[in-house]
Amino acid sequence: MAVGQFPFPQMTPIAGLRLGTASAGIKTPGRQDLVVLGLAQEARVAGVFTQNAFCAAPVTVSKEHLTSNDVRYLVINSGNANACTGEEGLADARLTCRKLADMAGARANQVLPFSTGVIGERLPMARLLAALPQALDNLSEDGWQDAARGIMTTDTRPKGASVQFQYEGETITVTGISKGSGMINPNMATMLGFIATDAKVSQALLEQLVKKAADQSFNRITVDGDTSTNDACMLIATGQTPLPEINSTQGELFAKFYNAVVSVHIQLAQNIVSDGEGATKFVTVQVEGATEKPEAAKVAYAIAQSPLVKTALFASDPNWGRIVAAIGYAGVEDMDSSLVKVWLGSVLIVENGGCAASYTEEQGQAVMDQEEIMIRVDLGRGNSKDRVWTTDLSHDYVTINADYRS
Amino acid sequence: MAVGQFPFPQMTPIAGLRLGTASAGIKTPGRQDLVVLGLAQEARVAGVFTQNAFCAAPVTVSKEHLTSNDVRYLVINSGNANACTGEEGLADARLTCRKLADMAGARANQVLPFSTGVIGERLPMARLLAALPQALDNLSEDGWQDAARGIMTTDTRPKGASVQFQYEGETITVTGISKGSGMINPNMATMLGFIATDAKVSQALLEQLVKKAADQSFNRITVDGDTSTNDACMLIATGQTPLPEINSTQGELFAKFYNAVVSVHIQLAQNIVSDGEGATKFVTVQVEGATEKPEAAKVAYAIAQSPLVKTALFASDPNWGRIVAAIGYAGVEDMDSSLVKVWLGSVLIVENGGCAASYTEEQGQAVMDQEEIMIRVDLGRGNSKDRVWTTDLSHDYVTINADYRS
Repeated sequence: MAVGQFPFPQMTPIAGLRLGTASAGIKTPGRQDLVVLGLAQEARVAGVFTQNAFCAAPVTVSKEHLTSNDVRYLVINSGNANACTGEEGLADARLTCRKLADMAGARANQVLPFSTGVIGERLPMARLLAALPQALDNLSEDGWQDAARGIMTTDTRPKGASVQFQYEGETITVTGISKGSGMINPNMATMLGFIATDAKVSQALLEQLVKKAADQSFNRITVDGDTSTNDACMLIATGQTPLPEINSTQGELFAKFYNAVVSVHIQLAQNIVSDGEGATKFVTVQVEGATEKPEAAKVAYAIAQSPLVKTALFASDPNWGRIVAAIGYAGVEDMDSSLVKVWLGSVLIVENGGCAASYTEEQGQAVMDQEEIMIRVDLGRGNSKDRVWTTDLSHDYVTINADYRS
Repeated sequence: MAVGQFPFPQMTPIAGLRLGTASAGIKTPGRQDLVVLGLAQEARVAGVFTQNAFCAAPVTVSKEHLTSNDVRYLVINSGNANACTGEEGLADARLTCRKLADMAGARANQVLPFSTGVIGERLPMARLLAALPQALDNLSEDGWQDAARGIMTTDTRPKGASVQFQYEGETITVTGISKGSGMINPNMATMLGFIATDAKVSQALLEQLVKKAADQSFNRITVDGDTSTNDACMLIATGQTPLPEINSTQGELFAKFYNAVVSVHIQLAQNIVSDGEGATKFVTVQVEGATEKPEAAKVAYAIAQSPLVKTALFASDPNWGRIVAAIGYAGVEDMDSSLVKVWLGSVLIVENGGCAASYTEEQGQAVMDQEEIMIRVDLGRGNSKDRVWTTDLSHDYVTINADYRS
């Protein structure tokens, strides 16, 4: 199940980036499950990775190889996470890089590996390596949609976003793909994101940018509160535009570029939430009036991750008591509950420590019956705010996760 | 659904404590939903309450009245939590105390009120007050089982525990009841516990004791991670035994008494978990080898509250990768994943950062097929440990919470 219509968009290719997909049959025979990205020599790459202490072997290797500042290939497999596989798993990830490098005339540390899927099983290395030549043969600037499909696991649809902007008569493009539908949580739960631009960007700025963009997008979504061992968001700048290098946060070019990059990140992140396992609702939780941003985030996550709030959302039940209970246990010190206001959509439901006098159940029901729902909270303590996106908790979530060995 | 057989036990009465139950029809006409406890003049009472910032009106009033150190009555209604009801809700809780006090010849601040049920709706005060005389008329030292039923909400069975011990030829009894099956979490999620003893205990020690016992029992259970607005655990010492007052943590009498009190608390808490909403498994998560107890608790809760672990438990799937992922995101700084060991029951499943060489899926499956499951983790960092009890996440959990307006 998934919320809303997200047809795969028109993906504008990025000069200097080619994508090739192949079938290695890693988990399912015949499935396209291996993706290779080939980058122009001028390309720069920056990334953010899972904070999970049991990070997977490919995460360890990608972090190492990124330090070369000379990435030429990315290789991604779905169906097997190569996580919790010990020394053998590390060796498998390194071997994948070396074999790909050998075939493509590169060095092993110019290759970044990524994996997503089942935890705790060794990669079927023979099948994986045997499929690499086909992926390399297929490399094409038009390979975005196949790649978006190739990195899927429990996703029900491929996820892409592509935007452009003009600057001094030139066009800059930002195009990206993502995967993920469960274990979605801040700090890179089982999600992968690959976002590319033809802009020239300095390495230092690119590193700042990927952190900032991920913080406003992939780190602001939650499906079930679990964070995974494998997740990564990579930002690639191929530098093929004739425009000057963007190396500071000043000026109109940066401002336009920043908006485009963040927009693609947010589209890809929201697309993951709306494809959340068993999701029937797309929910924005916005918390204002906090003393500082982390306080707002804490309350937003308490609401977004509460199983009782999420089952009420599934039932389209305007059960504001559960929202209020979640605000109350979020851990905000010395919260004055009489100052807290809560809105469902534009309907004020809570003020003065209880139900708003103007509120009627019909008003709340009208909001809850919709597929996209906004829960807005004003803590009445300060001027900081934050927001997160989430889903409801449905029978299908239980079915998917009780049946699927992820 | 509920795990295991928990027949309601033989409840030994406590001299100096009488319980009366009546039907106020608060949520459901005809249901026994109002319980009054009447205490001997010598009785002492101590309690711990929810940490939720939106604590309910009766919690506020009970805390106030406890300071009188002269409690004679407790009045509990199920079906309506009187939470998030603002000033009117506080007035309702106070009025309940005053009316009961008038009928019973006591003062309002000698009465502690408790409520559990729907959040955000006013108590039906006329019906509640009209049923008080019947509850008072029914007061009896044998009223434990009726009271256990009277405080239930989504519980599928009444919960009681009763133990005795001998000291210098005298018998001391500890008997208690509890309610709760969802929103179970540390710091008093929607649960109520009333535990009484005929021992003489000093007020200061009683206050220490209720905190310590709750910390090892009700604060170590979690069903869905939500904590509620209403919860309370009360420890009552009626002082009817001829034995001397227990006023220090020294000596054999205290040691025996402490064990009895903690045992009743743990039985009542485990009974709540095993009756968890939709529960099909009773799960103990024990974490050892932590640098300090809170670190062990953090990891235990990360596992116990992970929806992915819980759905795997529901599916009887020995999906140890999800356990490992939860350990990894628990937030333990500088965790060395290669030192972590994980057992399912007595089966070692994880060591050296991956699957144990000796492990077979059949071994794991045999453990997961059982109704009671132990997940044991050694972090390999120190000598502290902690444990929590939890359930799986089933279809019935979603059904119950999508259908029930709690």
